[in-house]
Amino acid sequence: MRAVDIIRKKRDGGALDHREIGWMVGGIASGEVADYQWSALLMAILWRGMDDAETAALTDAMMHSGSVVDLSTMPGVKIDKHSTGGVGDKTSLILAPIAAALDVSVPMVSGRGLGHTGGTLDKLESIPGFRVDLDLKRYQQVLNECGLVLIGQTAEIAPADKRLYALRDATATVESIPLIAASIMSKKLAEGIDGLVLDVKTGNGAFMQQLEDSRRLARTMCAIGRGLGKRMRALITRMDQPLGRAVGNAVEVAESVACLRGEGPNDLVNLSVELAAEMVVMAERAGSLDEAGALCRRVIADGSALDRFRRVVAAQGGDPRTLDEPERLPQPRARRDVAAPRSGVVESLAARPIGQATMLLGAGRARIDSIIDPAVGVILHKKVGDPVDAGEPLCTVYFNDTAALEPAIAMINDAYRVGDGPVESPPLIVERC
Amino acid sequence: MRAVDIIRKKRDGGALDHREIGWMVGGIASGEVADYQWSALLMAILWRGMDDAETAALTDAMMHSGSVVDLSTMPGVKIDKHSTGGVGDKTSLILAPIAAALDVSVPMVSGRGLGHTGGTLDKLESIPGFRVDLDLKRYQQVLNECGLVLIGQTAEIAPADKRLYALRDATATVESIPLIAASIMSKKLAEGIDGLVLDVKTGNGAFMQQLEDSRRLARTMCAIGRGLGKRMRALITRMDQPLGRAVGNAVEVAESVACLRGEGPNDLVNLSVELAAEMVVMAERAGSLDEAGALCRRVIADGSALDRFRRVVAAQGGDPRTLDEPERLPQPRARRDVAAPRSGVVESLAARPIGQATMLLGAGRARIDSIIDPAVGVILHKKVGDPVDAGEPLCTVYFNDTAALEPAIAMINDAYRVGDGPVESPPLIVERC
Repeated sequence: MRAVDIIRKKRDGGALDHREIGWMVGGIASGEVADYQWSALLMAILWRGMDDAETAALTDAMMHSGSVVDLSTMPGVKIDKHSTGGVGDKTSLILAPIAAALDVSVPMVSGRGLGHTGGTLDKLESIPGFRVDLDLKRYQQVLNECGLVLIGQTAEIAPADKRLYALRDATATVESIPLIAASIMSKKLAEGIDGLVLDVKTGNGAFMQQLEDSRRLARTMCAIGRGLGKRMRALITRMDQPLGRAVGNAVEVAESVACLRGEGPNDLVNLSVELAAEMVVMAERAGSLDEAGALCRRVIADGSALDRFRRVVAAQGGDPRTLDEPERLPQPRARRDVAAPRSGVVESLAARPIGQATMLLGAGRARIDSIIDPAVGVILHKKVGDPVDAGEPLCTVYFNDTAALEPAIAMINDAYRVGDGPVESPPLIVERC
Repeated sequence: MRAVDIIRKKRDGGALDHREIGWMVGGIASGEVADYQWSALLMAILWRGMDDAETAALTDAMMHSGSVVDLSTMPGVKIDKHSTGGVGDKTSLILAPIAAALDVSVPMVSGRGLGHTGGTLDKLESIPGFRVDLDLKRYQQVLNECGLVLIGQTAEIAPADKRLYALRDATATVESIPLIAASIMSKKLAEGIDGLVLDVKTGNGAFMQQLEDSRRLARTMCAIGRGLGKRMRALITRMDQPLGRAVGNAVEVAESVACLRGEGPNDLVNLSVELAAEMVVMAERAGSLDEAGALCRRVIADGSALDRFRRVVAAQGGDPRTLDEPERLPQPRARRDVAAPRSGVVESLAARPIGQATMLLGAGRARIDSIIDPAVGVILHKKVGDPVDAGEPLCTVYFNDTAALEPAIAMINDAYRVGDGPVESPPLIVERC
């Protein structure tokens, strides 16, 4: 086989077979395929697309480029959740302990934030001492002890995906649905899971802003997973305004803990419970979503979900006192309120500029090597549909870097639109597939 | 500037400006742009195309990546000819001495054969002692002494093109009209020429098999050259059957010399004279193509064109006796006739399989590092429209490698179609622009 022939085939709109795809992926490690050949193929894929069989073959080849964890000897059904990324999206921190409290085994490998979106690993690392870089042995131990484990992608998992992702990032070939789907699924399927619940975001704060694209991504990922014998479920959910009230890292941990105490904002609690309920049904711990939802709310009410979170924080080296005393989480040097420019109703609150403002404050990464400031962020007092008086605080900015404050506030002011209302509130969950 | 932003712009169908293109080309030598970024851009260019301004900017940047020869202090108008490549296409060896004999200065930088097409350099090197690797100083000396010079691309000329061509070859991004045009023109314009006559081939033996593609390539190259102040003329000519009767290297030199003696086959002599006449008019050595054509035939008849060829062969180290005693050229160990399977008329003689058969015999390159056998090739006794009796030789194969003989003959048999006729003979020159 020759890389140039495979590139030509895709360039001309042909479908690659699994041997061709496997050979190209294998060629990354063997050196038989040069980076410049892969990047040309990536651009051809972005142009011509890939059908479900090709996408599954790419996923499979990338998954098998590294270790595939075997959790089959461990009791219980192993279910993970993956979100395509949003602003204020901390559902992983809430639903993983809930599902674990209901005897679902949750082996979760998460990512870091990039651009306007936050990342689960960055949020967890704002808990003093918390380690996300466990090796695969310790990963299985923690999962066994706590019923859940929360780590980052290790070097052993899907190394071909890591290399291809770096190439995509440098060659403007990120925005391809089959490439996105294969990248996500190759890592998730290497974790040793039996099933996966997907939260595919749509709207201005999501990577996929068009519903049709989100739907294609959801369907593509479900097809890949089902093709490889996994239980799959995807919810398409709105990411027009941030999820919950906290956007940052430590502030999002505090809000997640509040949810586990039954004190969280409705949108965040409801979505976390919906997603957890899907996991519970998938693991056959309940016969219906209604039943599962009730169980999820019960383990919040009785403290057993919070207890699971406390156990996993301790097991991964974090200070569990931060859960009861949130002031032990990193705190900013200063806070500043942003006042409403007029009285009225919040008509919209664009997620993307809020995410960008918190990135500017230091809560996110403009580049892959940016340093995260765990203490900074934004607390939103007013969200879409909320009435507001002129001068009343719309939100509070937590900051350390004074130079970033004014530009961040300008972005926040642009993100809020206060009008006369009334405001429609479409449901958070658009559809399930 | 960032390569990823420039790739994204082209990916999304935007036009790059000359600063962006210049920065990308400069980034090859400086290392600021990685090969894998260039190959992604090449695929995006193949997909989205480039307008004339972009193609001119790419040509200009590649031309200035190396030395640009200054021939302005040398007397006379400097005109070159370029062919997009075909089978049996040895017009350069004929028209360059003709034009030089009419006081047109012909600084010719040629290429090597690849795939089914031959290359001027390979043909010249079949003349014992002939050197095509002159440096730019000796290049100017020979041009001054002989009125023509025939060399290969030096490392000093358009090194960025060399690098990009290697990338294109490995990434299935060769077949892009703007990239082909910019590659050819960057090298030609670096030679120090005032004008260029293009022979753009069309048909089954050409790289561009569709007339519309050949037309676009011709127009694109003319636009680039004119935009940079050069005199430009393009002939689109048919490459459905081989040009002339000889296909190989030494056999093509011998046929070229025969043409310069007035003894060549009509199609080859006529096309060589047409192209030379364009050069003569471009150099203002004649007022019309008719007048120029008559002058060209006169310098064949009076031996002055052959004398020019003899001088340049001697000046470049070749044995000039080969011109008068063709048996001094490399000879094959054996010859074999291919007999007509039936009586009738040659209805077609596909150039591409004839080129592939001679490549198989060793006359061409399957790979860029293949070794050429100068002695082998094919002499076509029958061409399209010729009547033939069953068993009469269609052609004679000159070979050294016995193992290659039978497969080569099979390809030749497939290339010939003998039928009942009659046969249409469309004119060789399709159009001029």
